[in-house]
Amino acid sequence: MSALTIWTYDWVPPGPRGFVRDLRLRWACEEAGLAYRIETVPFEGRETNHLARQPFGQVPFLDDGEVKIFESGAGLLHLAGKSEVLMPTDPAGAAETLQWTIAALNSIEMVAVPWWFLTISGDQDNQLSGWLAGRLKHLEDILSTREWLAGGRFTVADLLMADVLRVKQVRAFGDRPASEAFVRRLTDRPAFKKAQADQMAFFEAADASRAG
Amino acid sequence: MSALTIWTYDWVPPGPRGFVRDLRLRWACEEAGLAYRIETVPFEGRETNHLARQPFGQVPFLDDGEVKIFESGAGLLHLAGKSEVLMPTDPAGAAETLQWTIAALNSIEMVAVPWWFLTISGDQDNQLSGWLAGRLKHLEDILSTREWLAGGRFTVADLLMADVLRVKQVRAFGDRPASEAFVRRLTDRPAFKKAQADQMAFFEAADASRAG
Repeated sequence: MSALTIWTYDWVPPGPRGFVRDLRLRWACEEAGLAYRIETVPFEGRETNHLARQPFGQVPFLDDGEVKIFESGAGLLHLAGKSEVLMPTDPAGAAETLQWTIAALNSIEMVAVPWWFLTISGDQDNQLSGWLAGRLKHLEDILSTREWLAGGRFTVADLLMADVLRVKQVRAFGDRPASEAFVRRLTDRPAFKKAQADQMAFFEAADASRAG
Repeated sequence: MSALTIWTYDWVPPGPRGFVRDLRLRWACEEAGLAYRIETVPFEGRETNHLARQPFGQVPFLDDGEVKIFESGAGLLHLAGKSEVLMPTDPAGAAETLQWTIAALNSIEMVAVPWWFLTISGDQDNQLSGWLAGRLKHLEDILSTREWLAGGRFTVADLLMADVLRVKQVRAFGDRPASEAFVRRLTDRPAFKKAQADQMAFFEAADASRAG
């Protein structure tokens, strides 16, 4: 039995498939060659059914022996501590990876997800659009100058930033060729493709199980 | 000369004083007894004047010898690696601290800051209010059961969560006695009071310098 267990929902509707955030942890494990298995909590009643493990009712969370950890960003940084594939071990490279991982969560996703939330409420050009445009412009300037965010090589920061940027509405926001090339480059990686295909297959099997 | 340098703006208007995020790093250093000095970049022209050090034009960023790091959350985690006062060293305690630090950034602040942004645009009861209410309710349930977020003791996760929650409009959002007690408990700590007083004095001195 593998020591690593990634917890996700037992089923989700078609819309979010391929984007449920267990994919971030699957992808990282695939990149690093870390063995893992999938366990589930019920999607129905998720507001209350697993608060003891994830106090906001979300997924994923991760078991690594005695270590239990929620928040996909925290799970990624925990996995990065297990494999140099995900994060350099030299202090400067590790710090650069950490800063870009946090930037994905707190400078880009912190604007992109609420912006997306307002767009799906029907307000495509909303009060957060200007803020998002500024953040994405700064990021485009960075990605125009280099292939990877940290350490001159693939790290978990690229993985997370690509996952934040690949959301359909965000990807279509403005003309940002370097960011688009970055998303393509990252989602062309075999580890991403396997993680995404596995998540899709997992929820398709859950459909069959529901119907059966 | 101290190896740690916290970079902030050379001046800010009165409104944000006491809340500029160099305070997070000052506070952490004060808790851990880490010596540091303050350096500045110009507030005027911040959109472009220090992009080489902080690609989104923000502060703070941190120098620790060869390590250069931006994003206040990343700076806090870097400092936490230097002192057990900020984060336990056992794997379970470290993971718990990491997850709650990321939760402060990506589950609470990711909703609270965009919500605050909409409120200061004049929309107090806005499209993000329901989402914020849900997140803060879950957090209230946690804080109703324990004094500290991680490891049964003060950690950098408490410091960051308190800094996210102490924003005036967030603090006034709903009746959440455990969260309010948490904010009071954390901001009553001598290290917070010193960090905040030092930031206020720093910007007051900058006023005098401008006037002179």
